[in-house]
Amino acid sequence: MAEKRDLAVILLSSGMDSAVCASIANGHYRLAFLHVQYGQRTARKELECFNKLCQFFQPEKVLIAEAPFLKKIGASSLTDESLPIPETEEPGIPSTYVPFRNGIFLSIATAWAEAIGAKKIFIGVNQVDFPGYPDCRDSFIRAFNQAILEGTKPETEIKIEAPLLYLSKREIVSLGMKLGTPFELTWSCYKEEKLACGRCSSCKLRLKAFEEAGFKDPLRYAV
Amino acid sequence: MAEKRDLAVILLSSGMDSAVCASIANGHYRLAFLHVQYGQRTARKELECFNKLCQFFQPEKVLIAEAPFLKKIGASSLTDESLPIPETEEPGIPSTYVPFRNGIFLSIATAWAEAIGAKKIFIGVNQVDFPGYPDCRDSFIRAFNQAILEGTKPETEIKIEAPLLYLSKREIVSLGMKLGTPFELTWSCYKEEKLACGRCSSCKLRLKAFEEAGFKDPLRYAV
Repeated sequence: MAEKRDLAVILLSSGMDSAVCASIANGHYRLAFLHVQYGQRTARKELECFNKLCQFFQPEKVLIAEAPFLKKIGASSLTDESLPIPETEEPGIPSTYVPFRNGIFLSIATAWAEAIGAKKIFIGVNQVDFPGYPDCRDSFIRAFNQAILEGTKPETEIKIEAPLLYLSKREIVSLGMKLGTPFELTWSCYKEEKLACGRCSSCKLRLKAFEEAGFKDPLRYAV
Repeated sequence: MAEKRDLAVILLSSGMDSAVCASIANGHYRLAFLHVQYGQRTARKELECFNKLCQFFQPEKVLIAEAPFLKKIGASSLTDESLPIPETEEPGIPSTYVPFRNGIFLSIATAWAEAIGAKKIFIGVNQVDFPGYPDCRDSFIRAFNQAILEGTKPETEIKIEAPLLYLSKREIVSLGMKLGTPFELTWSCYKEEKLACGRCSSCKLRLKAFEEAGFKDPLRYAV
């Protein structure tokens, strides 16, 4: 086992996938947690969960990046509250898609990783049970790795790790349970109420994953 | 000549290169001006120039994106005021390099372009007379174009245009003069005083370019 000496930036939305990523990285790297507040509907809830996840994992470094331009840009039901959140699967790219969000997140992560000397960026993207977002695919991650290689200092070595890319949601839950991921501190719901709604497409995907994996989701739901 | 119907996002720092880019795009596209405020030393001055450039060019759309995380990330003399601004050329990558700044700018531009349906992103990067920033090179732009292709909707068509990539600073000045670029409304100085300092490496590069091109820089300098 390699010495746990390299830093890794973990993009932590506070959703279940990124929390499992944190558990994976935790065994192998010193942790630097990055959370982006971009005027998303669930910004306050995500930040609350992020702070709890920081208490749990005790990362060495923490950056909360404010990116208010994503709300200005809009064009997504996650950042434009005049658009309804879908409760069923939509054909094509769903309205919850935020234009090039992972490109923005990975750019911020790259800048920070270069500044602090981190060697890896962990992102919880997944192209099996995912809502069809183009910036969650392997081909995007590969292209972005190339952009990082070309766009940073010659001595900088940063690579994106997307360990959940080919796992099903069921497998992600199983892996997280094995690694002790604190799922009770995460938030997947597209809405921001006291309890997760249990009805939006994101809650449904999560509940189905726990059921298939044979575990009870420790999060409390309104339904 | 194609009809002037497609929108193009112009990344406009308010420096001379991006202003020349705006002049180039102006003949061929409907303009969408994007300016990023990231806690840089010259943020106020750049914004003032950006507003004047908007009055001059009358773009159809304007976005001022706030990216305060770049100041938090630091690691550059442009965003960390405890680091001195260099007055002479430094060996290697200079201290004014802001980690992956163009990656962040291009990501924001991509998100906006996708939201408003723009087909191009103009960026004034240059790899001839440039301070050695890795995110100003052709290889980076090509890699980023690929990341855009992979990370946006299938129907989205956005391509980065970097028309100054292979021009010398002298040629950029000549081109701008020919196109009527309002250089008096731009700001290149690394400092933020009433007049450009004329002494930092950025002022020196600009003054030399005007001299070589045989024009007088319409900007007023302190020296």
